[in-house]
Amino acid sequence: MEDYSLTILGCSSATPNSRRFPSSQVLHVRGKYYLLDCGEGAQIQLRRARVSFEGLDTIFISHLHGDHFFGIFGLLSSMSLMGRKQKLTIYAPQGLKEMILFQFEACGQKLLYPIEFVELKKEPFYCLLDAKKFSIHAIQLNHRVDSWGFYFTEKERDRNIEPSVIEKYGLNFEDIKNIKQGRDFVCEDGTVVKNQDMTKDPVPPFSYAYISDTLFKPEIAQYIQNVSLMYHEATFLENLADLAVETHHSTAHQAAECAKLANAEKLIIGHFSSRYKNLDKHLQDAQSIFENTELANDLCTYTVRKPAYSIWP
Amino acid sequence: MEDYSLTILGCSSATPNSRRFPSSQVLHVRGKYYLLDCGEGAQIQLRRARVSFEGLDTIFISHLHGDHFFGIFGLLSSMSLMGRKQKLTIYAPQGLKEMILFQFEACGQKLLYPIEFVELKKEPFYCLLDAKKFSIHAIQLNHRVDSWGFYFTEKERDRNIEPSVIEKYGLNFEDIKNIKQGRDFVCEDGTVVKNQDMTKDPVPPFSYAYISDTLFKPEIAQYIQNVSLMYHEATFLENLADLAVETHHSTAHQAAECAKLANAEKLIIGHFSSRYKNLDKHLQDAQSIFENTELANDLCTYTVRKPAYSIWP
Repeated sequence: MEDYSLTILGCSSATPNSRRFPSSQVLHVRGKYYLLDCGEGAQIQLRRARVSFEGLDTIFISHLHGDHFFGIFGLLSSMSLMGRKQKLTIYAPQGLKEMILFQFEACGQKLLYPIEFVELKKEPFYCLLDAKKFSIHAIQLNHRVDSWGFYFTEKERDRNIEPSVIEKYGLNFEDIKNIKQGRDFVCEDGTVVKNQDMTKDPVPPFSYAYISDTLFKPEIAQYIQNVSLMYHEATFLENLADLAVETHHSTAHQAAECAKLANAEKLIIGHFSSRYKNLDKHLQDAQSIFENTELANDLCTYTVRKPAYSIWP
Repeated sequence: MEDYSLTILGCSSATPNSRRFPSSQVLHVRGKYYLLDCGEGAQIQLRRARVSFEGLDTIFISHLHGDHFFGIFGLLSSMSLMGRKQKLTIYAPQGLKEMILFQFEACGQKLLYPIEFVELKKEPFYCLLDAKKFSIHAIQLNHRVDSWGFYFTEKERDRNIEPSVIEKYGLNFEDIKNIKQGRDFVCEDGTVVKNQDMTKDPVPPFSYAYISDTLFKPEIAQYIQNVSLMYHEATFLENLADLAVETHHSTAHQAAECAKLANAEKLIIGHFSSRYKNLDKHLQDAQSIFENTELANDLCTYTVRKPAYSIWP
């Protein structure tokens, strides 16, 4: 699987059909896999997508509707049967921990690896994980039950130093580190070499926003400005906008509106109602508002970010 | 789907793989569908096999290992979302009812149709349902947890009456019924016409035995003598016979041995360990003992019984 890529495991809404599995997707960032939602059959789709269960240490569950988590029991069971020992972290709404513990207790299966459950908080936007090069935030959505989106952001990368500069000024490791972080360089004779004469802008940091089941909520765009890739549910078409409001879902139009407000680079729409066999109208509707839209499709991989330009000409 | 047919929805053992779903199958008898086990993804496979959820009123769960029932939550949920109103009956081991009630209570979904839970009893062989033309029995197996097989038998059919006889003797409805049940006919002048001169043997009644996870248990053959079609788990090959004993499973050899002891017409073997990519050896092993064996294959349909002969030449 390509680095910085998203693979859709399922993009159906509530009732799956013969063409689409329920919601689940896997984000691949710098050798790590993050599972976002885990609808029924996710473990089968992971196999088909050739994602190793061992590389999967973190699962995010957006909300407790079955089409977003009924696959977790099978996946956790298989991980244990396959001899997993390392810790698994599950970010999920209050309640999932109890369901999982009850389920495995009731059928007498002991999971042979530790699970850390992290309960999602009812805050509009907050940090779940802040690593050296990477952070993950939760975004509160507006659905019939508590629902969250997840926002992955790579931190600003170091500036790219021109290789010939190193020899020219006899730079040591410390000098290079300082210059990559944007500082100027002072030569032994006191001459100051400006940073912009030695470096180029880094590739912009990648980011991904997973916007799961929600009523159209334009306020979320403020939290994910300039996101590289965005997935937004688009359960219905505009002629069922009333049903979207009633069931707290979005239309393809609204998904595109949100991507536009967020100034996203690219939008993937999914979570399609099983009433739609042909999704051309979803795509047309979204593209009329936000052109760089693609339809989610089970087992398709979408590149989050290819280097936009080569660093040195 | 053809009448008297079995469609395999999944035939993998514990951990599914990209080629095989976990255990689930649907038996079609005289317009009714019976779901036997309900591994993860069963509802997706039912759609692919074009089995209407509405035609499904009875589910049998053999035992409470996840690969045999983790699909029931999604199926029950979808049935409700699709507006089901009619009763569903679930025959299952003690414990499944509580899991289902806990699960739907915890995620706040109310199922909008009644479910009758029938707990399986720890008896070697007993009748679950005795209808006019049909009966269903449970067979106790020998697995790491309580496990049952299910045996479907059509009752003896009426004899076939030769149409010309009706006119010849001026038979009324009552006469015909008596003759079809094997009685002789007494003409007005007192002449006795022997039943065998007016009828032919009916098509032998069909029967199906589903032998789920079990250690080789030859005793069960006595309960299913002359079964038309038999499914028997065949998790391992003979070189892993020790592992089969340890995990309370059967080998392909043993499945065939059981079919031979039962004097079955045809055997389907399944529940293959995910370690096997190629199943040729399973088939060879079984056929060396019981020739009329086929390999289970997801979404393949097997005919239980075609009329063995035309009734009148």
